[in-house]
Amino acid sequence: MDKRFYKHLGPFSLLELLDGLDVDIPEGQFCDISIENAAPSDLAGASDISFVDGKGATRKAADCRAAVCLVSAQNAEHIGKAGGLPLVSKYPQADFSVILGRLYKALGYGDGANNIFKDVDIGRGVVIGDGAQIGAGTRIGPNSVIGPGVVIGENCEIGSNVVIEFSVIGNNCKIYHGAVLGGAGFGVAKSAMGGMDIPHIGIVELGNDITVGCQTTIDRAMFGSTNIGDGTKLDNGIQIAHNVKIGRNCLFAGHVGIAGSCNIGDGVIMGGRAGLPDHINVGDGAMLVANAGPIRDVPAGEVWGGQPATPIREQLRQLSAIRKLAKPKPKS
Amino acid sequence: MDKRFYKHLGPFSLLELLDGLDVDIPEGQFCDISIENAAPSDLAGASDISFVDGKGATRKAADCRAAVCLVSAQNAEHIGKAGGLPLVSKYPQADFSVILGRLYKALGYGDGANNIFKDVDIGRGVVIGDGAQIGAGTRIGPNSVIGPGVVIGENCEIGSNVVIEFSVIGNNCKIYHGAVLGGAGFGVAKSAMGGMDIPHIGIVELGNDITVGCQTTIDRAMFGSTNIGDGTKLDNGIQIAHNVKIGRNCLFAGHVGIAGSCNIGDGVIMGGRAGLPDHINVGDGAMLVANAGPIRDVPAGEVWGGQPATPIREQLRQLSAIRKLAKPKPKS
Amino acid sequence: MDKRFYKHLGPFSLLELLDGLDVDIPEGQFCDISIENAAPSDLAGASDISFVDGKGATRKAADCRAAVCLVSAQNAEHIGKAGGLPLVSKYPQADFSVILGRLYKALGYGDGANNIFKDVDIGRGVVIGDGAQIGAGTRIGPNSVIGPGVVIGENCEIGSNVVIEFSVIGNNCKIYHGAVLGGAGFGVAKSAMGGMDIPHIGIVELGNDITVGCQTTIDRAMFGSTNIGDGTKLDNGIQIAHNVKIGRNCLFAGHVGIAGSCNIGDGVIMGGRAGLPDHINVGDGAMLVANAGPIRDVPAGEVWGGQPATPIREQLRQLSAIRKLAKPKPKS
Repeated sequence: MDKRFYKHLGPFSLLELLDGLDVDIPEGQFCDISIENAAPSDLAGASDISFVDGKGATRKAADCRAAVCLVSAQNAEHIGKAGGLPLVSKYPQADFSVILGRLYKALGYGDGANNIFKDVDIGRGVVIGDGAQIGAGTRIGPNSVIGPGVVIGENCEIGSNVVIEFSVIGNNCKIYHGAVLGGAGFGVAKSAMGGMDIPHIGIVELGNDITVGCQTTIDRAMFGSTNIGDGTKLDNGIQIAHNVKIGRNCLFAGHVGIAGSCNIGDGVIMGGRAGLPDHINVGDGAMLVANAGPIRDVPAGEVWGGQPATPIREQLRQLSAIRKLAKPKPKS
Repeated sequence: MDKRFYKHLGPFSLLELLDGLDVDIPEGQFCDISIENAAPSDLAGASDISFVDGKGATRKAADCRAAVCLVSAQNAEHIGKAGGLPLVSKYPQADFSVILGRLYKALGYGDGANNIFKDVDIGRGVVIGDGAQIGAGTRIGPNSVIGPGVVIGENCEIGSNVVIEFSVIGNNCKIYHGAVLGGAGFGVAKSAMGGMDIPHIGIVELGNDITVGCQTTIDRAMFGSTNIGDGTKLDNGIQIAHNVKIGRNCLFAGHVGIAGSCNIGDGVIMGGRAGLPDHINVGDGAMLVANAGPIRDVPAGEVWGGQPATPIREQLRQLSAIRKLAKPKPKS
Repeated sequence: MDKRFYKHLGPFSLLELLDGLDVDIPEGQFCDISIENAAPSDLAGASDISFVDGKGATRKAADCRAAVCLVSAQNAEHIGKAGGLPLVSKYPQADFSVILGRLYKALGYGDGANNIFKDVDIGRGVVIGDGAQIGAGTRIGPNSVIGPGVVIGENCEIGSNVVIEFSVIGNNCKIYHGAVLGGAGFGVAKSAMGGMDIPHIGIVELGNDITVGCQTTIDRAMFGSTNIGDGTKLDNGIQIAHNVKIGRNCLFAGHVGIAGSCNIGDGVIMGGRAGLPDHINVGDGAMLVANAGPIRDVPAGEVWGGQPATPIREQLRQLSAIRKLAKPKPKS
């Protein structure tokens, strides 16, 4: 949790934190546990609350070292020796989401009255939140919005109607018109009421010499950061989801879409409208041609195409076979 | 026609309304008909003008109960007994579009001086039109634009640089940065001058607990409303066209596109960049995988993929067959 | 270079212009050449600097009439008799990009104090740069940004949160909410430091009666202009890259993407999410169905579909053949 962007409202006693939630609390002894933070199960420590659910829950439960861990009934027994108290919940992630909202609060914009920027060209109508830092030589186009605590390096060019929140940006970056950095990622937890948005308390981190095209969106991480490496260039209308890691010197053409938690190496090229589902790895120097849609990892240096994408040679073989198969038979 | 958003400029005499249009007006008797409203042929009543053209024109003409109906020459004879005067036009929809522009006018922003909002957190640079209503506990990010007459419920979170016009939004909704609600739908009528934009005098209606991602666009209806049901969550960069109906608790991933007048049930899941052409129905609980592009209705509960999309089992069979076919023959 | 939008900072002596660049300068005689402009190799004249690299470099070198031409070592000898001095560079386009930045500078917004518009309805929060011209009867929605020197014709409707820079727009156009016209195109030159953004010193030119949907982006040209012809209608979320030429009365549905330098005729229809890679020609009256992705030119009047796209009849044959091939064999 980055204090430049979020306020920590804790600690709370466990009972306060669980107030109103449909969670089975064992009698007496645990009520006065003090909970400092909420964290994912692999990062939570002895004063934290966490949750375990979904794919790999058994293993995650065994490894969880949180003071308190929300679990479904069938996973409660798997909470390991290192872990603390398992609390049974019908909707562990939804309850955890409510708790996140109780522990952390995004800082407000304030009135910006104390912001002092030296050698920064700020367009008319720009709104800047309290505590933002902007480096010398940077230009911000009219009507853009820079959130509280945002850090922008030197000699950057921020276009018009840009929104940047929860972000730390290096030097010599260009963020073009209408781009949005730091929006909440898309994550929905099942709850008794239907779906519940999972709070995102992470950030976006951009290195140096990065270009972000018009209308491109880069979501902040759920925890931790969404990262883009030095020298990477993104065209217009691209969507980069929460927790994605993109290496250095990548080139992504228009309308590319990267779903959550993908891990993309250095020097990767993606043609127009290529897209990745979540948790896909793409190795250094790989290339996805336009419209490519891999559904498994793409090894370094390979060129892939198609939906679902395969190595391009395989795609060409398939296309050739289909063409041959479809060829009208000459009448004899 | 919703008076919160549009001003009714009628009634007009038929002659006034048709002034300058290339329409054959029968002599004398009809000039002093007074026309109150313009409406689609299935909704128009005894004081209205309508038009009939395109697919199903013969049936529509027979059913039309408008006082006056613009029709092409070959459809004039089909205007039924219930209907009024058929007026022959070379371009019935284009002429009807001109008439819409004469009968209805969107309300202006005014200066917002009389807007009073209680317990609403309005960011710097926000512009709000006259007559907008915003519920307690709602927050609006900097530089967003809320059109005249817009209704936003309680405890909503509106991001920065959002545009909301011609919309009625429930409680606990989140509309993220750069989203646009209530833009004119995309509809073009053939005219003597080429294409003419068809005026859209409908609205957008959102239920409760809805999330709309960054840069997502939801167009208002031509007539009536574009609807999204309670609990539906839309990711970034999605396009929802005019007159679409989306049910409750749907989940749409990034870059999904829904063309005009689609009808989508409850609990429908659409993967990244799945898309629907116009007038497609998707049943409750159906799932479209990433990149799926159905060209016919998708039954409830089914999982579809591919372009054109089919049930996923059929897709997998096709992929398997193609792979086998394309496999290089071992040299004997 | 259009003086309404850019300031010419030259002429410079060759030595000034090359200062700090890793270019082999032949001794003595050329240092005091005065360079007026930088231009592409086919347009550069006797007082200009240019570069030659990449595909077709040999031919381009032979035809180049620039006073000075940056070339890679292997192309230096091809500089023709008509041409001037070849200067050997490891990264001709990157060095040329640096030079562009030294010769031309975009005009700033200024304070707009001298802008006088007659009969223009300007919304609250709109920012307009110095020297912009806006015709009578035009309406600009709240919080939009109109760059310095921009020309907008009469009776246009500009939405809210729109950004228009480096653009000349005709009469009766509609530019809907969140659209961005005139952003820098996406072009990256290889340099010693990785990729370098290529400056774009061109413009966007729109004819009359054009509609640009919400969130649609139209990039300005590298040199010259990106053009859209009279009566063309673009839906939401479309991306039009630099130097694209689109004819009259085209209809593009949502999420269409057109890569750089495509040339599209009159009356072309593109379904949702159809896309073109760069330098593709599409003839008059051609139609691309939804999701179509041609990788070669599309002849006038033809209907194409698929990825890669083919004439629709061929697509249907292929689909039919695949279906037949994948059909489960009845057990005998």
